[in-house]
Amino acid sequence: MMTRVLIIGGSDAGISAALRARAIDEAANVTVVVADRFPNYSLCGLPFYLSGEVPDWHRLAHRTEKEITDAGIHLLLDHTARAIDPISHRVSVSDVSGREELLPYDRLILATGARPSRPTLPGLSLPGVYLLRTMEESFLVEHELSSLTPRSAVIIGGGYIGLEMADALIYRGIKVTVIEHHASVLKTIDVSLGKLVQAELEQHGVEVITSMRVERITQKGAQLQVSGAHGFSILTDLVLVAVGVQPATALAQTAQIQTGIQEAICVTRKMETNVPAIFAAGDCVETWHRFLKQPTYLPLGTTAHKQGRVAGENAVGGQAQFAGTLGTQVVKVFDLAIARTGLRDEEAVAAGFDPLTVETTVWDHKVYYPGAHRLSMRLTGDRNTGRLLGAQMVGYVHGEVAKRIDIFATALFHDMSLETLSDLDLSYTPPLSSPWDPVQMSAQNWVKQQIKLRHARNATRE
Amino acid sequence: MMTRVLIIGGSDAGISAALRARAIDEAANVTVVVADRFPNYSLCGLPFYLSGEVPDWHRLAHRTEKEITDAGIHLLLDHTARAIDPISHRVSVSDVSGREELLPYDRLILATGARPSRPTLPGLSLPGVYLLRTMEESFLVEHELSSLTPRSAVIIGGGYIGLEMADALIYRGIKVTVIEHHASVLKTIDVSLGKLVQAELEQHGVEVITSMRVERITQKGAQLQVSGAHGFSILTDLVLVAVGVQPATALAQTAQIQTGIQEAICVTRKMETNVPAIFAAGDCVETWHRFLKQPTYLPLGTTAHKQGRVAGENAVGGQAQFAGTLGTQVVKVFDLAIARTGLRDEEAVAAGFDPLTVETTVWDHKVYYPGAHRLSMRLTGDRNTGRLLGAQMVGYVHGEVAKRIDIFATALFHDMSLETLSDLDLSYTPPLSSPWDPVQMSAQNWVKQQIKLRHARNATRE
Repeated sequence: MMTRVLIIGGSDAGISAALRARAIDEAANVTVVVADRFPNYSLCGLPFYLSGEVPDWHRLAHRTEKEITDAGIHLLLDHTARAIDPISHRVSVSDVSGREELLPYDRLILATGARPSRPTLPGLSLPGVYLLRTMEESFLVEHELSSLTPRSAVIIGGGYIGLEMADALIYRGIKVTVIEHHASVLKTIDVSLGKLVQAELEQHGVEVITSMRVERITQKGAQLQVSGAHGFSILTDLVLVAVGVQPATALAQTAQIQTGIQEAICVTRKMETNVPAIFAAGDCVETWHRFLKQPTYLPLGTTAHKQGRVAGENAVGGQAQFAGTLGTQVVKVFDLAIARTGLRDEEAVAAGFDPLTVETTVWDHKVYYPGAHRLSMRLTGDRNTGRLLGAQMVGYVHGEVAKRIDIFATALFHDMSLETLSDLDLSYTPPLSSPWDPVQMSAQNWVKQQIKLRHARNATRE
Repeated sequence: MMTRVLIIGGSDAGISAALRARAIDEAANVTVVVADRFPNYSLCGLPFYLSGEVPDWHRLAHRTEKEITDAGIHLLLDHTARAIDPISHRVSVSDVSGREELLPYDRLILATGARPSRPTLPGLSLPGVYLLRTMEESFLVEHELSSLTPRSAVIIGGGYIGLEMADALIYRGIKVTVIEHHASVLKTIDVSLGKLVQAELEQHGVEVITSMRVERITQKGAQLQVSGAHGFSILTDLVLVAVGVQPATALAQTAQIQTGIQEAICVTRKMETNVPAIFAAGDCVETWHRFLKQPTYLPLGTTAHKQGRVAGENAVGGQAQFAGTLGTQVVKVFDLAIARTGLRDEEAVAAGFDPLTVETTVWDHKVYYPGAHRLSMRLTGDRNTGRLLGAQMVGYVHGEVAKRIDIFATALFHDMSLETLSDLDLSYTPPLSSPWDPVQMSAQNWVKQQIKLRHARNATRE
């Protein structure tokens, strides 16, 4: 019997689900409802479009529309899903003219993604203030950059998107100020590494203001004024607000689908919601943490692809399980790559471990070979068991930082100890590594510190 | 009681053993006998010294002499060990003047390394013909390159050292011909990937002659003539012979220490030889293969460090075990990195598996972001169990090839299946990867091919 799979959302999770459903069941009737005209676009690529490094936005598509429809997937573009009737198994959708229709389903997959968090900040709706997330919003920013040629920009938020946009706007010759309310940029890594990122930003001409809470944005002649605590104020031509995202769950709520952490949709590891025949995946759902063995909210493109794949397989009768996230992520900021996986010290404490975090800085390849850069790593392990809990890294963007964090991610996946990391048979040639890879040098340093502290503790006891 | 640890050999395995012994037991009396004046030199760095990329050879030292002696290690430089008396626990050594002395030991570690294989080839001793391995030999080649300024060179052997030297000599503006007796260069990878390497060599002006057995080298006026089968002959100014290495075991033989594969010293996983109180490590020993569960001969710097560490720990009473090699390796040739780990198809057959090898070529990061290069991967897995058996890769040298092979190496260490590779939470940002890393895309392609072949097989049966 032909299964009708209806998918709401045409970004990473939605298209992954559609492709997987068709790959598993050639007879499945798969329809994807897409709110705009841009199915399967790489939202992670938007900063590189706005920098001008990717001049043609069409190239941001993971796949062309034709590739998707050639896989036997029906695309319903420029349609917005309005409400779910979970009893009659129908979703009402409307097109741009407002005309409604009812789409039936046997299995429904919600992949509605996330939307940018809107801080409670007066002035957010002024012209020249943008929250980046969609293609449409990016076109507006691109239009402003090209036609109004702003000379300065303030970015509120020093997270991934904020810093990528700082890089992008500097690339376009615009003066950039980043304002972060936390004590250092990239609060997803420890402060000592965050300081390295801040230095990199400043070296490229970005003004970085930390520990500053923005209070309002006001119009000041042709410019915008961004004001904060203690009389802080700055005039600028353009404001980008990038203070995180939150799950888009308005549609799910029409079917009384249960939500949890940060109001993300609760799902099982099979990506089932609490409502029969309805799955959900991607930035709109809670994410199972492989290490913590509990749900969290960690919207990432990699996770969206994996969850979409699981939902798509299960929508046509499969029994796939999402293996869980480790929170592995990497971002490029100018000439640095910044990466992490697993838990940081305070997260490990919260999870009931007795963590020790040790920082190690070594060369990313044999220093005698030209082009070596410093690679700073912070490893977190359990003091008692020696188990690896997490890793953070900051290094040269072409120093294989991203795939080095992946060695740690693969080690975490297998519950390795820091001691056994030295048993891994990793590759070496002087232009690319050392006989002990930095991954292993940092693990050996962790073990050395652990032993030293244990001796010190025992000495105190005696 | 103070343990006297005597180590013969001052390269990777010897110095690692010495450092580990001292780290574990501060009271240990550790002496390293070094045949030349260059303890702890990175032999893997010699091609980069000869290219001129590392102008000062002193920088090739992993550690300075002072760093080693500051760790409490005695260095006996310019001394050659001549014979072991395993009964009285003494080793006779001689200095450059020929004066002998007897050194006592409680534990002896042989780290005598390997020497270049000398093919049975008339003309090997002619001036201008070199076998690269030691610092001294490299000085002679450097002297010839600098003072005689040869305009052409023939490299016999298209393995790692041969190709690194081709890169190095082209860098110095010398015309290079590589002669390989196998059907493609780098016979440690499959031919389809070897062809990519050959194309890279040719693009950089290297003449590559494959399937050619060299028969003799003769003097022809001021030049050398290299002749081979079917009337082949070429005139050149310089000949480098790089056809592999063999274990240096003359010293071990004075104590009737057992040897095995390729006459390498037989050792347990604790790096014990069959003679009491004598350990051995590095390029002179058989290497335990983690996957094959049997010894092999795979001389690599990474392995030497690991084995030295185990031998050093056990020499002062430890119980460490060498975890085994997977044969992980990487080499840079011009703008390519070539890497492998685990088994290739024919090796897997020999080991009793029913292997399937699938080749996949994808971009090393999102193609919309500038600077993407093609990454070619060949994955070998067991057709029945889906278990990962090995991986080979050729890609852009700054495309994170080396650390991508390490993800496979870490997966092999944990006996992962190709299916579960997609469960790994790997990092992603468009300038550095894709939402499914190439590692995962190639694994998914392998699984797809496996299923397709299984269906085809079943269809044939029906």
